[in-house]
Amino acid sequence: MRIVVLTGGIGGAKFLVGVRAHARAIGADVTAVVNVGDDVRMHGLQICPDLDSVMYTLGGAHDPERGWGRVGESWVVKEELAAYGVEPSWFGLGDKDTATHLVRTQMLSAGFPLSAVTAALCERWQPGVTLLPATDDRLETHVVVDVDGERKAIHFQEWWVRYRGDLPTHRFVFVGADAAKPAPGVLDAIAAADVVLLAPSNPVVSIAPILAVDPIREALIGTSAPVVGVSPIIGESPIRGMADKCLATLGVAVSAAGVGALYGSRADNGLLDGWLVDSTDAGTEVPGVPTRAVPLWMTSEETTAQMVRDALSLAGVS
Amino acid sequence: MRIVVLTGGIGGAKFLVGVRAHARAIGADVTAVVNVGDDVRMHGLQICPDLDSVMYTLGGAHDPERGWGRVGESWVVKEELAAYGVEPSWFGLGDKDTATHLVRTQMLSAGFPLSAVTAALCERWQPGVTLLPATDDRLETHVVVDVDGERKAIHFQEWWVRYRGDLPTHRFVFVGADAAKPAPGVLDAIAAADVVLLAPSNPVVSIAPILAVDPIREALIGTSAPVVGVSPIIGESPIRGMADKCLATLGVAVSAAGVGALYGSRADNGLLDGWLVDSTDAGTEVPGVPTRAVPLWMTSEETTAQMVRDALSLAGVS
Repeated sequence: MRIVVLTGGIGGAKFLVGVRAHARAIGADVTAVVNVGDDVRMHGLQICPDLDSVMYTLGGAHDPERGWGRVGESWVVKEELAAYGVEPSWFGLGDKDTATHLVRTQMLSAGFPLSAVTAALCERWQPGVTLLPATDDRLETHVVVDVDGERKAIHFQEWWVRYRGDLPTHRFVFVGADAAKPAPGVLDAIAAADVVLLAPSNPVVSIAPILAVDPIREALIGTSAPVVGVSPIIGESPIRGMADKCLATLGVAVSAAGVGALYGSRADNGLLDGWLVDSTDAGTEVPGVPTRAVPLWMTSEETTAQMVRDALSLAGVS
Repeated sequence: MRIVVLTGGIGGAKFLVGVRAHARAIGADVTAVVNVGDDVRMHGLQICPDLDSVMYTLGGAHDPERGWGRVGESWVVKEELAAYGVEPSWFGLGDKDTATHLVRTQMLSAGFPLSAVTAALCERWQPGVTLLPATDDRLETHVVVDVDGERKAIHFQEWWVRYRGDLPTHRFVFVGADAAKPAPGVLDAIAAADVVLLAPSNPVVSIAPILAVDPIREALIGTSAPVVGVSPIIGESPIRGMADKCLATLGVAVSAAGVGALYGSRADNGLLDGWLVDSTDAGTEVPGVPTRAVPLWMTSEETTAQMVRDALSLAGVS
């Protein structure tokens, strides 16, 4: 069986741990198509937060307490940059992380595409899953906000990390998406997939930037494989992160039903053949989309693998 | 009084501490023209070992035990780069140092010349001395050596750090020196100088690359200010570093007399109006150059300041 997962960073990484566990059990092949909208160049370093979260988590090197970044991280480089007075000072640039960014940036400077760089970095981490950036082209999520009474677009990282989303927020713009081509392997993976899963990642700033690459969205709408999504909302709260603030900006209800309707039914030119929601959200209705309610808290690899089995079952491919 | 010092890294930095102490006492102005031949790009970072040694030492942030780099340094980035398997792994890239290199590299990428970058970094360190790179242009010391039976040119850092100079060594080449222009301020400083001092730095790989910039050498030969050098050799040993191996490559005697003759007398189209040697080398003769023997061990700021007073006295400007 070939499984393709569209995913963002931390929540998606946890989900992928469960996907990998189940895939190992049944001998399936997994390709993760990872959001790059969070990517940003800071201090001359090309930083790919979602790719790194997935890579570190699947490599067993992430910090489970903090959520993002490396376990046992130190912050000397960040403190020194602040001592020089260079901005931005609000970004969490760890020392271990810095080495990853140095290797990536140097390979990019040498002309390697991000997909090749990611494969090279994964030589070390052995994630057990093929990691593909959605695109090798520049695609950055910017956010139109009001700051000190002035309307402007800031990078998603600034919105997320510096302001914790706590600004009057008007919309998200995926800069470069129009011209972005899918990274090598993405369309082939979708074409060969027996099932496509949407991880319980932020629909607005993790999954939407992937879908903003037109050929990817078209491939998903056109694929004969079933597409099943896992709700990132339980009750009225995101499992983690700030999906609630993002959804509010779009005027979408912060609920499993709201996100399911945002993705939409295949029958209606949307994405979903099935929508997995939490047990507490049993009875959720999404027009034209079969739903199933199961426990969605990813408290362990085993509970997460069970979610994946439930998703595959809903897709009819278990 | 205006004092110009030609200098390399660690030994020159110690010397400059004494120069600064004396200059403060008499209200003099000091400009250090610093070797850039050691500069190298590694892991995408532009590293300037001599500028950094001088900056950190005068800023009170150097490691007095190790000699180079920052006190309290950590090595996470270096260990992580090694874990990725990227080369070179032999270079001592500290975490604190990495931040300096990141700031420098990003400013250079933005189009600032190295002299402007150095001034910006010095805003933090307040060295109390104007630090000028010899040139803003690329000027790298390469070393023609035999490695595994093959003759090739390697970067000076590789020769020095990786091989500790322990290779059959044929010559030093200052790549880019022919086209290099003096950095802004260098010729003005020499023209305005009341005295020029050659720090007790390695004459072959610290001072010679500065002199390899033709307009600098010409300005020194033509200046009306006296030029006095301080011997980096005491007895038959360098005060620190590997000047002995470098001098041997040139066939120059490892002695105060040998280095003095290498610089040569002003009367003979050379550089020196005076040559300060250690007390144990009293009686050293350099054709056409007045010498004086005083204690040259830089054991404290005060003893070093006394050396500087002796050098200025020999120059006739004290």
